[in-house]
Amino acid sequence: MVEEETPTRGTLEDREAVEAAHRAYYAAWEVGDPQAIMDVWADDDRVCYILPGNGPNHGRTAVRERVLETMTFAAGLQFLFTEIDVTVSGDVARLTCVETVISPDTFGGDEEMAAALAKLAVTSLFMRTADGWKMWHHQAGPMLTHLRLERE
Amino acid sequence: MVEEETPTRGTLEDREAVEAAHRAYYAAWEVGDPQAIMDVWADDDRVCYILPGNGPNHGRTAVRERVLETMTFAAGLQFLFTEIDVTVSGDVARLTCVETVISPDTFGGDEEMAAALAKLAVTSLFMRTADGWKMWHHQAGPMLTHLRLERE
Repeated sequence: MVEEETPTRGTLEDREAVEAAHRAYYAAWEVGDPQAIMDVWADDDRVCYILPGNGPNHGRTAVRERVLETMTFAAGLQFLFTEIDVTVSGDVARLTCVETVISPDTFGGDEEMAAALAKLAVTSLFMRTADGWKMWHHQAGPMLTHLRLERE
Repeated sequence: MVEEETPTRGTLEDREAVEAAHRAYYAAWEVGDPQAIMDVWADDDRVCYILPGNGPNHGRTAVRERVLETMTFAAGLQFLFTEIDVTVSGDVARLTCVETVISPDTFGGDEEMAAALAKLAVTSLFMRTADGWKMWHHQAGPMLTHLRLERE
């Protein structure tokens, strides 16, 4: 939640608008509405989407294809967010957070995959447009909390 | 490699400068020089660093701590890049790529971890400063090429 006025990170109004766009994006995923998902993405061919486990997908067409493809995996997913941070700099906004994926019965029962994708680190960039803040870039990267990342 | 003039993605000069900053960043990792690594990061407390497998780390102090900590894992690593894309919009630049990590003898022999971190999807943001393009955000997310991401 955006809690305080922090002038160097943008106005409270801008930061709340960015966080609302982020919520709308995941709400669209939760209900499985690809049109609502694409409405959050900017109408700009410089958009880039990095799904968990994937490389970069550039452009509206590639983003739409990946959204539709991912829908077949993501039915019934719900999302929780912690460590939300929004920083606005001019007409660009960056939202970072930790995303917890609640997957009641997905990934075809593949436990290793479910564990790998249960907790994700997220970078979302939004651009200020005449139609409000629109997603310009999104990366969700596996946090691999099931692996031991400390050296022996 | 930045190959052509693409006006909507910024001038060739800007895009080459951003790519050079990106190369300098990884060159500093390859030689294990934390000061050179921190010189690429912006002198700005809004910097954010998402290491593979980690959540967001905000601010110069946290970034420096993570760099120093990661050095103990990363000795001897080398990096190859494919799918490099640079887009400049005003004073913000986004570089995306796929990073292949060559790790001759690292991660304490943990094969699962080595596999998980062998191929990473990268988002780097740079800000235009009086001192050139400086890193403002960096996320490297595991591509999990060792897991089967297709549904059964």
